[in-house]
Amino acid sequence: MLSKRDFVTLAIAGGASAATGVANYTGASHILVFVIGAVALAGLASLIGEATDHLGRYLSPAATGVVQSAVGNLPELCVCIFALRAGLIEVVQASLIGSILGNSLLVLGIAFIAGSARHKVLVFDAAGPRMIAALLLLAVSALMLPTLASVMHLPAGAHEDKLALVCAGVLLLVFLVSVRVMLGGSERTVPAEAHVQQEAGWPLWLALTILALAGTAALFVSDWFVEALNPAIETLGISQAFAGLVIVAIVGNAVENVVGIQFALRNRAELAISVILNSSLQVALALIPVLVFASYAMGGTPFTLVIPPMLAVALMLSAIIGVVVTADGRADMADGAALVGLYVIIAAIFWWG
Amino acid sequence: MLSKRDFVTLAIAGGASAATGVANYTGASHILVFVIGAVALAGLASLIGEATDHLGRYLSPAATGVVQSAVGNLPELCVCIFALRAGLIEVVQASLIGSILGNSLLVLGIAFIAGSARHKVLVFDAAGPRMIAALLLLAVSALMLPTLASVMHLPAGAHEDKLALVCAGVLLLVFLVSVRVMLGGSERTVPAEAHVQQEAGWPLWLALTILALAGTAALFVSDWFVEALNPAIETLGISQAFAGLVIVAIVGNAVENVVGIQFALRNRAELAISVILNSSLQVALALIPVLVFASYAMGGTPFTLVIPPMLAVALMLSAIIGVVVTADGRADMADGAALVGLYVIIAAIFWWG
Amino acid sequence: MLSKRDFVTLAIAGGASAATGVANYTGASHILVFVIGAVALAGLASLIGEATDHLGRYLSPAATGVVQSAVGNLPELCVCIFALRAGLIEVVQASLIGSILGNSLLVLGIAFIAGSARHKVLVFDAAGPRMIAALLLLAVSALMLPTLASVMHLPAGAHEDKLALVCAGVLLLVFLVSVRVMLGGSERTVPAEAHVQQEAGWPLWLALTILALAGTAALFVSDWFVEALNPAIETLGISQAFAGLVIVAIVGNAVENVVGIQFALRNRAELAISVILNSSLQVALALIPVLVFASYAMGGTPFTLVIPPMLAVALMLSAIIGVVVTADGRADMADGAALVGLYVIIAAIFWWG
Repeated sequence: MLSKRDFVTLAIAGGASAATGVANYTGASHILVFVIGAVALAGLASLIGEATDHLGRYLSPAATGVVQSAVGNLPELCVCIFALRAGLIEVVQASLIGSILGNSLLVLGIAFIAGSARHKVLVFDAAGPRMIAALLLLAVSALMLPTLASVMHLPAGAHEDKLALVCAGVLLLVFLVSVRVMLGGSERTVPAEAHVQQEAGWPLWLALTILALAGTAALFVSDWFVEALNPAIETLGISQAFAGLVIVAIVGNAVENVVGIQFALRNRAELAISVILNSSLQVALALIPVLVFASYAMGGTPFTLVIPPMLAVALMLSAIIGVVVTADGRADMADGAALVGLYVIIAAIFWWG
Repeated sequence: MLSKRDFVTLAIAGGASAATGVANYTGASHILVFVIGAVALAGLASLIGEATDHLGRYLSPAATGVVQSAVGNLPELCVCIFALRAGLIEVVQASLIGSILGNSLLVLGIAFIAGSARHKVLVFDAAGPRMIAALLLLAVSALMLPTLASVMHLPAGAHEDKLALVCAGVLLLVFLVSVRVMLGGSERTVPAEAHVQQEAGWPLWLALTILALAGTAALFVSDWFVEALNPAIETLGISQAFAGLVIVAIVGNAVENVVGIQFALRNRAELAISVILNSSLQVALALIPVLVFASYAMGGTPFTLVIPPMLAVALMLSAIIGVVVTADGRADMADGAALVGLYVIIAAIFWWG
Repeated sequence: MLSKRDFVTLAIAGGASAATGVANYTGASHILVFVIGAVALAGLASLIGEATDHLGRYLSPAATGVVQSAVGNLPELCVCIFALRAGLIEVVQASLIGSILGNSLLVLGIAFIAGSARHKVLVFDAAGPRMIAALLLLAVSALMLPTLASVMHLPAGAHEDKLALVCAGVLLLVFLVSVRVMLGGSERTVPAEAHVQQEAGWPLWLALTILALAGTAALFVSDWFVEALNPAIETLGISQAFAGLVIVAIVGNAVENVVGIQFALRNRAELAISVILNSSLQVALALIPVLVFASYAMGGTPFTLVIPPMLAVALMLSAIIGVVVTADGRADMADGAALVGLYVIIAAIFWWG
């Protein structure tokens, strides 16, 4: 039932979760809680991904897709909700946008550099990235326009909470349509190999049990992680924006990063791009709108789509450069360098943030 | 000579025009004048389009193109000139830009959704949309740069009327070049079927008579429509920008909308995109510059290219997303949803405008 | 050894250089020094280009590429450094950006118009322009983001000199990677014909002598040219920005202009685009960062990447329209007209600058 690799993941996720709890309650250094918590969350995310994959054998493809979308980002969602409750809106915004920028620029760029170092030019079908690019541009617009309305003091800026609900509704609807298209067997589907089945699947009870355990653990670890976040940032002496944009973003996407770069090294550019950009897309089109609704339901300061204008411009630039780089179905080292270069410039600006 | 469909169009356009006149002079509710007037203008636009098509049999292709460009937007031009004379510059700006956004986002999006609901993926030659996209980007730049110069109080901002004349001249010149290219038999020509000849053409005298009658009627109805516009907006309690952006835009493009969506349903994506995007293009590259020159000739407050910055950004975003969606010659439901989604977000922002 | 054409270039460059010196020391009109100096600089640039081409026979391809990049922009680099020392930061910025805009919009547009007037539609491989477009977008972002940080008074704006060093480092690194890719024999290499070998090459001593002489002459002429620049601008009564953006830019790229347009006329669109856009790229990705480091080394007012926001937006618009026009590997007269049209609109805005 459980392969060797499953045991390792289980051990890391469980061990790190327990260690985070111990570190939290014994009053260990916040940086320690922060670091172990990050490892635990990455492990739990990986475990949840595996469990839903196995669950897929007992569900229709459409239902699997919905479940995966729903629980795949669970740890990140938990972190964000706890952080919102703690009033850390800036960190949440920065880490969500950092997640998008980190994937679309840094991880994709590294994948292109690594892949083209070995294979010179990566060749792929441009239809998939093109569809994702259009959806990302919509999501970026849904952040840019309310931000602009607020900066320019338009009447709509005074209703930013209601505007956020409208935009979030639009994004979620479009997300559902796009999931349906991807599942619908059009040629743009995520390539089948992305979900290679293990030799032997898990029985239903095991998949459900692990899902329940990992989900519960994610809830607790997220809580401890967020509690340690702010003091850790202060100890490190970096800005909140830089912490969210770079550290949380890189940690939170560790799994996608490794998988995506591995695919590129094996000259499977299509899979690499699909894994990396879909991860950006889920944050932009699903996680952000769900957080808008969650924060509305929780009361308190609403989580709106008004973000620092610099982040909105950075998102727009990275969406556009992403479109251009993937438009012709070929990527080489210069393309990868351009993506990573833009990420470094954006991070540098927030270093003094 | 006149087909059954011609008679119906003639009856609707004539009847609605007469009804608008009666409603206007009998002091009927402004909303009533507004609504019947809108129907009449749509009917007249359709009639004028038909007449110029038939006229085409007696002219060289080049001359037909020029005549079509010149008279095709006649009703919209009349409405705008009367509205400018009435000092309703904001409504004119909003309805022109709403016309572009409505076509490029809402109508194209609905066409993609409808078409892909029936045919899964729409496939088309990307060369036509690509050329239109480049021209639309030029037109959007010609609105964005003067707007920015004004917002940032650059020296050029103090000469916005002269700058508008320069930009309008550039746009009109580029428009003439693009008409020449489209007529020149390059492969990017509007597909021939777009102008399917009826079984029997109209004789020259009939085409000219209907053109003259419809043109005259358009003049009168435009006048009544504009008079009713402002009080109707107040009665409905919506903002001027929303009225122009959404209501006038949708009403004013009713014909293109229906035709474009019908083409998409019949899996003729190329024709659908050509009809819909060329309609945007004519507003941006011909109608707007002609209005700049007309307002200059009329004296009074000049119609410049300085627009609300939010509209400039919305235009830019929709031009970019339009490029991405049509770049690879395929469109599915997610693409359509992204376009409609962006339109809804933009409209929501101006709801509180 | 020296062909007839070589002699003519040598005579023009040498004669004009000497004439500039004479005009400068005899106190001739500044406009005269400015005009003859411009001719001399264009001639010297052409001569240096030729000499490095011949030098290429004695070096590995990789080394040739580096030498060409290093010395090809030598005259422009000299002019900029002298102008920086004279405190003419605005003129330097405007002429660098004018160089990019002039090439990407005006020269490319004219080449498309000229080529399509003779050949209707120009067809080319889109991979080359696509790669250049991605790199140009990076360079534009490296100007846009620091500018925005400064305009919005972000903390990073207070460190614009350090931020400029980071961005310049990123750009130079990416430039080196892209040179390596272009030399690496991927299909995106600059087409071989761009460096057609003359019948008989120059011997090594001749290439080196001419390189040394032309380099030294470039140093002196640059000095005189910059000294004449400011008074000439005042005499002509135009704004500094317009002078840099239009006059210096057109003069400074005279050689690329002629060569690029000739290629287009001969229906070699690929070569035309490569010569013209690579010239933009070298300014953006090599010349600008080198100037940042040079100004830092020289002390005094640092040359940062904070530029007038209008120029940043103009650059972004032209990069985007350039991407769209070249995306499908075909260009016609409407595309050329759109590019030239955008250039005219931008120039008009700075006419009142």
